[in-house]
Amino acid sequence: MATALIVLAAGKGSRMESDRPKVLHEIGSAPLLAHALATGRALEPSRIVVVAGHGADEVRKATAHWAPEAEVAEQTEQLGTGHAVAQAAPALEGFAGDAVVLYGDTPFVRPETLRRLAEARAQHDVVVLGFEAADPGRYGRLVTKEEALLRIVEFKDATDEERAITLCNSGLVAADSATLLSLVADLSNDNAAGEYYLTDIVALARDRGLSAGVVTCDESETLGVNTRVELSAAEAIFQTRARAEALEAGVTLVAPETVFFAQDTCIGRDAVIEPHVVFGPGVTVETGATIRAFSHLEGCHVSRGAVVGPYARLRPGAELSEGVRVGNFVEVKNAVVAEGAKINHLSYIGDAEIGAGANVGAGTITCNYDGVFKHRTTVGAGAFIGSNTMLVAPVTVGAEAMTASGSVVTSDVPDGALAISRARQETKAGFARRYFQKLRALKGKKD
Amino acid sequence: MATALIVLAAGKGSRMESDRPKVLHEIGSAPLLAHALATGRALEPSRIVVVAGHGADEVRKATAHWAPEAEVAEQTEQLGTGHAVAQAAPALEGFAGDAVVLYGDTPFVRPETLRRLAEARAQHDVVVLGFEAADPGRYGRLVTKEEALLRIVEFKDATDEERAITLCNSGLVAADSATLLSLVADLSNDNAAGEYYLTDIVALARDRGLSAGVVTCDESETLGVNTRVELSAAEAIFQTRARAEALEAGVTLVAPETVFFAQDTCIGRDAVIEPHVVFGPGVTVETGATIRAFSHLEGCHVSRGAVVGPYARLRPGAELSEGVRVGNFVEVKNAVVAEGAKINHLSYIGDAEIGAGANVGAGTITCNYDGVFKHRTTVGAGAFIGSNTMLVAPVTVGAEAMTASGSVVTSDVPDGALAISRARQETKAGFARRYFQKLRALKGKKD
Amino acid sequence: MATALIVLAAGKGSRMESDRPKVLHEIGSAPLLAHALATGRALEPSRIVVVAGHGADEVRKATAHWAPEAEVAEQTEQLGTGHAVAQAAPALEGFAGDAVVLYGDTPFVRPETLRRLAEARAQHDVVVLGFEAADPGRYGRLVTKEEALLRIVEFKDATDEERAITLCNSGLVAADSATLLSLVADLSNDNAAGEYYLTDIVALARDRGLSAGVVTCDESETLGVNTRVELSAAEAIFQTRARAEALEAGVTLVAPETVFFAQDTCIGRDAVIEPHVVFGPGVTVETGATIRAFSHLEGCHVSRGAVVGPYARLRPGAELSEGVRVGNFVEVKNAVVAEGAKINHLSYIGDAEIGAGANVGAGTITCNYDGVFKHRTTVGAGAFIGSNTMLVAPVTVGAEAMTASGSVVTSDVPDGALAISRARQETKAGFARRYFQKLRALKGKKD
Repeated sequence: MATALIVLAAGKGSRMESDRPKVLHEIGSAPLLAHALATGRALEPSRIVVVAGHGADEVRKATAHWAPEAEVAEQTEQLGTGHAVAQAAPALEGFAGDAVVLYGDTPFVRPETLRRLAEARAQHDVVVLGFEAADPGRYGRLVTKEEALLRIVEFKDATDEERAITLCNSGLVAADSATLLSLVADLSNDNAAGEYYLTDIVALARDRGLSAGVVTCDESETLGVNTRVELSAAEAIFQTRARAEALEAGVTLVAPETVFFAQDTCIGRDAVIEPHVVFGPGVTVETGATIRAFSHLEGCHVSRGAVVGPYARLRPGAELSEGVRVGNFVEVKNAVVAEGAKINHLSYIGDAEIGAGANVGAGTITCNYDGVFKHRTTVGAGAFIGSNTMLVAPVTVGAEAMTASGSVVTSDVPDGALAISRARQETKAGFARRYFQKLRALKGKKD
Repeated sequence: MATALIVLAAGKGSRMESDRPKVLHEIGSAPLLAHALATGRALEPSRIVVVAGHGADEVRKATAHWAPEAEVAEQTEQLGTGHAVAQAAPALEGFAGDAVVLYGDTPFVRPETLRRLAEARAQHDVVVLGFEAADPGRYGRLVTKEEALLRIVEFKDATDEERAITLCNSGLVAADSATLLSLVADLSNDNAAGEYYLTDIVALARDRGLSAGVVTCDESETLGVNTRVELSAAEAIFQTRARAEALEAGVTLVAPETVFFAQDTCIGRDAVIEPHVVFGPGVTVETGATIRAFSHLEGCHVSRGAVVGPYARLRPGAELSEGVRVGNFVEVKNAVVAEGAKINHLSYIGDAEIGAGANVGAGTITCNYDGVFKHRTTVGAGAFIGSNTMLVAPVTVGAEAMTASGSVVTSDVPDGALAISRARQETKAGFARRYFQKLRALKGKKD
Repeated sequence: MATALIVLAAGKGSRMESDRPKVLHEIGSAPLLAHALATGRALEPSRIVVVAGHGADEVRKATAHWAPEAEVAEQTEQLGTGHAVAQAAPALEGFAGDAVVLYGDTPFVRPETLRRLAEARAQHDVVVLGFEAADPGRYGRLVTKEEALLRIVEFKDATDEERAITLCNSGLVAADSATLLSLVADLSNDNAAGEYYLTDIVALARDRGLSAGVVTCDESETLGVNTRVELSAAEAIFQTRARAEALEAGVTLVAPETVFFAQDTCIGRDAVIEPHVVFGPGVTVETGATIRAFSHLEGCHVSRGAVVGPYARLRPGAELSEGVRVGNFVEVKNAVVAEGAKINHLSYIGDAEIGAGANVGAGTITCNYDGVFKHRTTVGAGAFIGSNTMLVAPVTVGAEAMTASGSVVTSDVPDGALAISRARQETKAGFARRYFQKLRALKGKKD
């Protein structure tokens, strides 16, 4: 059956002390919203509606990036979760199927849990995701009778008997889309906060003779983010899991606690990750590659047997082939580096292709920016780029060609040729001795 | 009423296994002594006396740096805490008011606690700071009767009944300055250690008909540092607090446990601090700035919207204006970088002014040191410094001027001009091929 | 008495999810096997036999590196621990003395424990190392009667009464070498797994009228490594101990949890190690040296009073004398740097000697590789290497000589002389203005 996701992402998160909308704060280098969307995709939804409110423009932009297929509905006034769901109605017009309500600030719900929630619709008209709380505190309580969910009661409205219930409300709901929208349309805001609560649909549904039920998950899945402290706790949980998964997959992590993964980092078996490594989004590292200490990778691919770092920075578009070596204080951006090429020291390689087996000397810079445009550099297979060569793009150095150290290369170099631009060395005997004598005398006077 | 601080800082700290005087070991990039002085300043003291002993010269130097207004009294023999306080007498001659005794190796007493200690002088002639110990162990015990402090008893001299007391002595004391000095002058060293104990003044005071009382604080405030392990535990406590305060203030810390603050680090709301960042002393980061991974900052200012790192090193005197970008493997020292300027890769910018919107290419170096003197470099607004430009100071590159990549710039460049110092590129066909053939043949022979 | 070590190192460690043999996974930058060998050396063995199986070639290579005096016996089929010990027989032919069986995947047994095990041979023919398990779980149990060890019983074969025993088997055994080999030769594989268990020798020995006894150690010493998670836990234990030892020895570790040591790292009293530092194998740091944040050291020596980093990479063969300063983004490899020399910024110094007090400017590179051979660079005492100097090796810069910034130095520079290779600076008025006008106009058209 077709499924629609309704992702609530309108909250301000004032306890975050931030101008950024809450759902755009990140864990694993991806916004909370992206985590919720990733989970939601487990249902293979045919529609996704993100309900934005605070910072709607930014949320719209993030949605376009992380779920281009989604529609954004705007909730201009924050009148409660029920009201937020109601804003999805225009976007779901004509949609037939189930709707599942998720939260943009709740990143840890497991795909399996969502699937169980969706499947439980076979038994009930409305299904709510609940959890057994270790300390139920002020959570809403799920009042059940055998298989049936009777109602959801807010803590402050609960009787002592109801407060003794430990089955709590996560907020996630699944129902037939038309039913859900019709229920939220009937909600009342006759309560202390003057808000339309999504939770009230359970009692409403039962009033209409519909059935409601509960699917449960682990409490840890329902963790929401409301403060910076909770955000950093969520990041820690994310990282702990990502590290454990990497270890289980046969990755060597010398010091897992110092390695930071992004949501989509992908590392092969027997890859070695030394201490103090940061993975931004979009990184794949193949089996048997080594990422040495203090390396920083984003949007790049490292092939089998390549060795990166220490202190290597791979930026988006860096593609390292097998056996490539990128060493210390080297930045590679938007560049394909072919098999066995070496860029070992203090270099900037951007907008370039480096041929197989080429040796790029220390201090090499691709001068890819003329102040307005960017240009490409090509280095042929087996070429030898002398130390401190400036490759002024657009420029090509041919296969097995060579540049003399300290050269500024502005014209193409044919295969097998040498390019050199260098003033002849002059040696002035005694100059340094006289020079320093003079300077030191001057200093003596000044002191 | 006027207040004098007496800060005891004479101890050797032999369990530190160090040649450095104990109070000069650091947490949060500031010596323990500086933490004690910072707390003491909550009382707005009109006099500060630091009692130095072991390593007195170094303690004197540190005092001059962290509290230039303080006097240093020297305790040439270590004859106990009472004797140490007595050394402050000459410095306090003619001073009328209260004296508060602090410890240079006890960095966590809270300013509010000190204020409560000082205010309690309205009720008692001598006020001692105590704490309820979870495990009183071998601490000195405070023997009280209702509001009155009767005496302080050392653990080894305590009766079983006294050992059952859980109210323990922190060592901090407040009293009228003249009274305190008169009391310590009357102390006896008739005990096993042959030392003059400050704790004995309570009994002495009561013998004179003076009253004594207790103010209590949390045990964690009284944590002293006696070993390297305790020092690193104290550092961890300091960092944990600093991180929590930053989070509460709305700073994004992706991985708080990998970020290290100094005592005076100041970070604005919505600044983003990526993993693995170290702040030395004297750093301010404005709201909305981003400090990327593996950056190291000391004595610098980063304005709103600036992006620093990864792998950026900002040293004292680096002043980054709004929207500045300092990228990887870049060191900036004693340099003002104006709005929107970019220094993105592999550069050293020292003793310089970089104009608004200037673009400083990869590998640029300000050659600020001639072997004896340092000189300044000025780069105008909108200038374009080509990659690997050597700016041999003193030198000025004008507004919207340009340097060709690989140039050594020794003379000023007027506004809008180009400076170039570059040998023409020569290309020698087939040279590289022959060169490597020869070398490889040679290698073949050698192998 | 002469002692032989038999180190079992044949296991595949399939739960490691790795192509690497289990005993070659590393903690503290040394393979598990090396840790076991280091412990075993406490017995000053006259023979060492490593029994290899899975990945025997790699284990053979590692053994040659870490214990060149050892012999490697190959166990071609994995038929149990008893069978593995039996493979040592040819290597021990003619050897008279005791044999001690260790495990290549058990890195934490203490040297004192091994000595106690060996000494207990005075009382018993066969001595087994046991431990009191907090949670005995599925460990083998040691069945004792007074001083005598009766037998070792596998958990699955144990009666309820035997399962109540908390004294468990570590697997380590000491016995007369000939006796041990004769006992393992008599083992039967008549059990569910069809394996020859070393544990069965205890019962066999008693059948022959020999005595068996137990020496106990702390459970933590017997920790084995079977999964990546256990490996990273073992690494964490190793690092925690190494940090604690450093603190006790009087090293300042600002943030011990971010510093990683190798098995053989050696740091002097009052050395300061800032946060985020990685020590690879073979590093010694003398008293009072400072290793600043984000530094990476391998195979190097840092003398008293030297300051390294931040972001310094010292590679094998870097020898820094007293008072040397190696600064940010500097790599030093196979180079002796004499007293007081400074290499402060963005440099690569490889295969070199740098004289006392020399100043190596920012961006200096020793061009040590000609594409086939490596060559050496020598810089004299008191020399001043200008920024961005290329030192094309083999080359010598004399004492108190100087190179102009941006020079490529291909010929030797005599003492006190200046070497310069630089094109004269030309300044083209208005060029930059026209250049950017043109480019921007072009961009305007394209947009």
